[in-house]
Amino acid sequence: MTATSRPARPVVLGQNQYGKAENRVVKITRDGDTHHIKDLNVSVALSGAMDDVHYSGSNSNVLPTDTTKNTVFAFAKEHGISSAEQFGVHLARHFVESQEGIHRARIRIEEYSWDRIATSDANSRFIGADEVQHSFVRTGQETRTAQVTYDGEHFEVLSGLKGLTVMNSTNSEFWGYVKDRYTTLKEDYDRILATEVAAVWRHTWSTDEQRMPRWDRSYAETKKHMLQAFAETYSLSLQQTLYQMGARVINSRAEIEEIRFSMPNKHHFRVDLEPFGLKNDAADGAVYYAADRPYGLIEATVLRDGAEPRIPVDMTNL
Amino acid sequence: MTATSRPARPVVLGQNQYGKAENRVVKITRDGDTHHIKDLNVSVALSGAMDDVHYSGSNSNVLPTDTTKNTVFAFAKEHGISSAEQFGVHLARHFVESQEGIHRARIRIEEYSWDRIATSDANSRFIGADEVQHSFVRTGQETRTAQVTYDGEHFEVLSGLKGLTVMNSTNSEFWGYVKDRYTTLKEDYDRILATEVAAVWRHTWSTDEQRMPRWDRSYAETKKHMLQAFAETYSLSLQQTLYQMGARVINSRAEIEEIRFSMPNKHHFRVDLEPFGLKNDAADGAVYYAADRPYGLIEATVLRDGAEPRIPVDMTNL
Amino acid sequence: MTATSRPARPVVLGQNQYGKAENRVVKITRDGDTHHIKDLNVSVALSGAMDDVHYSGSNSNVLPTDTTKNTVFAFAKEHGISSAEQFGVHLARHFVESQEGIHRARIRIEEYSWDRIATSDANSRFIGADEVQHSFVRTGQETRTAQVTYDGEHFEVLSGLKGLTVMNSTNSEFWGYVKDRYTTLKEDYDRILATEVAAVWRHTWSTDEQRMPRWDRSYAETKKHMLQAFAETYSLSLQQTLYQMGARVINSRAEIEEIRFSMPNKHHFRVDLEPFGLKNDAADGAVYYAADRPYGLIEATVLRDGAEPRIPVDMTNL
Amino acid sequence: MTATSRPARPVVLGQNQYGKAENRVVKITRDGDTHHIKDLNVSVALSGAMDDVHYSGSNSNVLPTDTTKNTVFAFAKEHGISSAEQFGVHLARHFVESQEGIHRARIRIEEYSWDRIATSDANSRFIGADEVQHSFVRTGQETRTAQVTYDGEHFEVLSGLKGLTVMNSTNSEFWGYVKDRYTTLKEDYDRILATEVAAVWRHTWSTDEQRMPRWDRSYAETKKHMLQAFAETYSLSLQQTLYQMGARVINSRAEIEEIRFSMPNKHHFRVDLEPFGLKNDAADGAVYYAADRPYGLIEATVLRDGAEPRIPVDMTNL
Repeated sequence: MTATSRPARPVVLGQNQYGKAENRVVKITRDGDTHHIKDLNVSVALSGAMDDVHYSGSNSNVLPTDTTKNTVFAFAKEHGISSAEQFGVHLARHFVESQEGIHRARIRIEEYSWDRIATSDANSRFIGADEVQHSFVRTGQETRTAQVTYDGEHFEVLSGLKGLTVMNSTNSEFWGYVKDRYTTLKEDYDRILATEVAAVWRHTWSTDEQRMPRWDRSYAETKKHMLQAFAETYSLSLQQTLYQMGARVINSRAEIEEIRFSMPNKHHFRVDLEPFGLKNDAADGAVYYAADRPYGLIEATVLRDGAEPRIPVDMTNL
Repeated sequence: MTATSRPARPVVLGQNQYGKAENRVVKITRDGDTHHIKDLNVSVALSGAMDDVHYSGSNSNVLPTDTTKNTVFAFAKEHGISSAEQFGVHLARHFVESQEGIHRARIRIEEYSWDRIATSDANSRFIGADEVQHSFVRTGQETRTAQVTYDGEHFEVLSGLKGLTVMNSTNSEFWGYVKDRYTTLKEDYDRILATEVAAVWRHTWSTDEQRMPRWDRSYAETKKHMLQAFAETYSLSLQQTLYQMGARVINSRAEIEEIRFSMPNKHHFRVDLEPFGLKNDAADGAVYYAADRPYGLIEATVLRDGAEPRIPVDMTNL
Repeated sequence: MTATSRPARPVVLGQNQYGKAENRVVKITRDGDTHHIKDLNVSVALSGAMDDVHYSGSNSNVLPTDTTKNTVFAFAKEHGISSAEQFGVHLARHFVESQEGIHRARIRIEEYSWDRIATSDANSRFIGADEVQHSFVRTGQETRTAQVTYDGEHFEVLSGLKGLTVMNSTNSEFWGYVKDRYTTLKEDYDRILATEVAAVWRHTWSTDEQRMPRWDRSYAETKKHMLQAFAETYSLSLQQTLYQMGARVINSRAEIEEIRFSMPNKHHFRVDLEPFGLKNDAADGAVYYAADRPYGLIEATVLRDGAEPRIPVDMTNL
Repeated sequence: MTATSRPARPVVLGQNQYGKAENRVVKITRDGDTHHIKDLNVSVALSGAMDDVHYSGSNSNVLPTDTTKNTVFAFAKEHGISSAEQFGVHLARHFVESQEGIHRARIRIEEYSWDRIATSDANSRFIGADEVQHSFVRTGQETRTAQVTYDGEHFEVLSGLKGLTVMNSTNSEFWGYVKDRYTTLKEDYDRILATEVAAVWRHTWSTDEQRMPRWDRSYAETKKHMLQAFAETYSLSLQQTLYQMGARVINSRAEIEEIRFSMPNKHHFRVDLEPFGLKNDAADGAVYYAADRPYGLIEATVLRDGAEPRIPVDMTNL
């Protein structure tokens, strides 16, 4: 066995964290014959007095990642899952307050939504089934996200979504831009604007002394405001649309003070059909080629005046 | 340059096909201020007198794949896209009837669906926008598929879907199975049944002399029947549920005579919480671990008695 | 509970199969301090007397997919894994011969290859380690595949690979093709030819009375012949290159009598730099844009004269 | 058209950036009959005087993302691509120094490596080809990454890699960890340690006055040191292995002063074969189940004493 003491030459440990990622927990709640479902992907990251495990391999301060997994499943049973954010608060608090060596916990959650499958008496002629309340189809639209961080004093809650693909088939222009030696783009006065929204927003709530937001309602309203601002903005640039979406959220939701977007410009290029003797004007309803790569990528933070920006520039998947 | 004549030793060419895959065509139709969208991924595969291009590299019978791409976009403008199936019929007929060397065309299409974004006067206080009818959010649930094959005489139309994830949180059992030396599984009288449905169904329609189905309505009804059969079947095995879904479709839709399913058993294992002093019974609303791999995979064809099975055993993505 | 007897209207069951897919089995063999690794993804599909489980949900002929999973892991220990093909033969035989209700077994395997990490005394100044023979880095190039089918009398063994990306930066032309109304492509006398090879080949071996091929050597030689034929063919079309690759294999390997390829034309378009006053000729070393979609897709079977084509037109992932 | 002036209520713009992501540029260099290939995926992100485009949609300071794309391809021709880092330095400098409104440029690059396909006279009996020097097979192992940021005064260069999957089949233990109410894990004195390394390291080089590192050699050596440290460390925890890998790099490469890793613990669980009467001890060469999710995730920065940590905690894909 190799000696693993700290090397003589001066190398030090910086920021570090560990935990179990992507615990896929599904909780069914039964209310008589009516079932409810919560479907989460929970990732735990813990930090604290972890020098020894890096320098010498001593695990005396290490709660195994296997244990953090067990805790996720046990908490789902013991406490239920009222919302992703609330579940994250529970877990983050537990790890920091129950383990001396853990000073900070970050819980990241993805939530997948399900709709009920509609059934009807009309179908009972086949198999005599009554209407059922335990059948679901996965919605498939956006993935909801939440990140809860706790340092023993304050919570930071970031809610979010990703994979929300939207399109305006008109009311978008792009002109008046800088032209240099490498510019060949033609100005466009009627283009498609499409993007796949990824957004993360920060709640002002940070301690138990404040009233906790109604997380599910906050999420639904925030999504609605983003969608409506996207639809209702006559756009001269994707940046402008992004800002309007952020401003609408900040102006409409008092519990949120910062929001960051990452929005690829999913280019839809009007196809040149002139070689085939066909006109293809936007005004007549055009044919577009939906391109993959490269794509414009627009990222920005929008925040309430005076708020401190705290959402990181880069947002990862989990 | 290397001589590429057919080698002396007897090696021959078998089935072959070529074309342009994954043409991402989006067609906007404007009806005043109300826009409609068709969003397709179209793949073309052509067969015919193609010995020379393989044996010697002579392209004299080869319509370039670039041309097949151009044709997809031009046809979207010239003929519009009333449905994926109808668009496929148009394209398949064109390639076979316009090129002597092409004897068979297969068009595969994925269709992505979009919902309208609801807007309202209530929001106009922000930016004065009226209700807009050109804003869409991608639905994200299943992907609709179509495959049209034409050999100069008959069409074969396969409609389908993939990525439709469904779950019953009860009314599923599994017991009474074979037990051999390697069997450790416990019988279960109340389990979750979840799967991601991929299905392909074959229409009886094959020539212009028959009345063409209303493709979009046929699709919507077929999907509805599958979902309802899934929900309403009290299941003793995923195979039984699969058969019920297929039988419901065949019994309900006269235009369809064969359907094939590929349904992974998306296992949701009840977590053992006994080590933590917790009961986790299905009847009380349990916590499950949603597993990735391995998974059961159930595949079967269901068909009208007397119909010839023609859907291939393996279904590929495109 | 719903009655699930066969419906009155005539609907019947067609081809069907079931099993456990994607069992990720890793076997370490220790030869003193030198370790060897086999890393497989094994999928089992069984067919037989399965009417009842579909029509009524009776599992009396159903060996659980969980048992097929256990069998994969137990066989890896009991019999070892000398090659993917040999392991598949073992498993397929077992399921058919041990269960009366199972008449046919198909085992599909993906194999991931690993290289040894080179270590040296030179590094021992850091931690005093000797050279180690238990450290590996995943190769990452192609994925090897195997499919073994057994019906109680004969085996059919398909070997293959996927994800093998190759490029010729010259010695590829494309001209002399059909030009119709929709053709705009320019002829090209010096283009990049790149593709991601997926191939499946069928061995003549089918019963224990024949001498079994040396599977690993057969695989290595077949891959080598494909790569060399790709490199050495001056190409007038991707079809010609594909045929040369197949012919080289059939001519070189007596144990193989059929091979099928699926080869996307990974387009590399020479970028038009004229607007910036730059020439971009292939002969000078050019700059290309590597496109994603759409792509040409060339598929064909090449076989020994007189051999019966049996590899399916569509090849799925697992 | 909607008025889009800055809303009355105080909402402000925070950090923002824009550009064209994932420009897939391939540069062939011809040295007689010997060709060389550089295969990059280049993403541009620009920041500066961008308030107007967000608040009002005025593009007067916006260099179109289409222009940044053109610039990438033109620079590949004008300046060649000697290394990913060097190409990034060129591009970053250009955007900041040529556009008054752009104050900061960040170039992110993925590089894909290719090996030569070996050919030989021995094969010439088939087609008479000489040895060719223009045929390549994609290596497929790790993806090399680079990020260059320039603010008009200093460069920051982060090199890196991702997707490097490694395994030690012994010399790994895990014991002596914290045990709480939710701990069920058994201690293990001979386990597999496997991970997929993602790493980013920061070079000290920051201005033209310093001698630029030899980027390709630096990369090759850094990768070698990481692999050897992984192989040669007798591991008591993945954290310890990670630290050893980082320390080896910092100690061996003077041009690097900080490195950050994100290393999932790719669990290989020893299968319990006791129910089948089989022993499955590590010492005899065992059978393992390679799990997907959940997985331990270990992340840490290692740096030269005194260096300022600047690599962000979260590393995104592009």
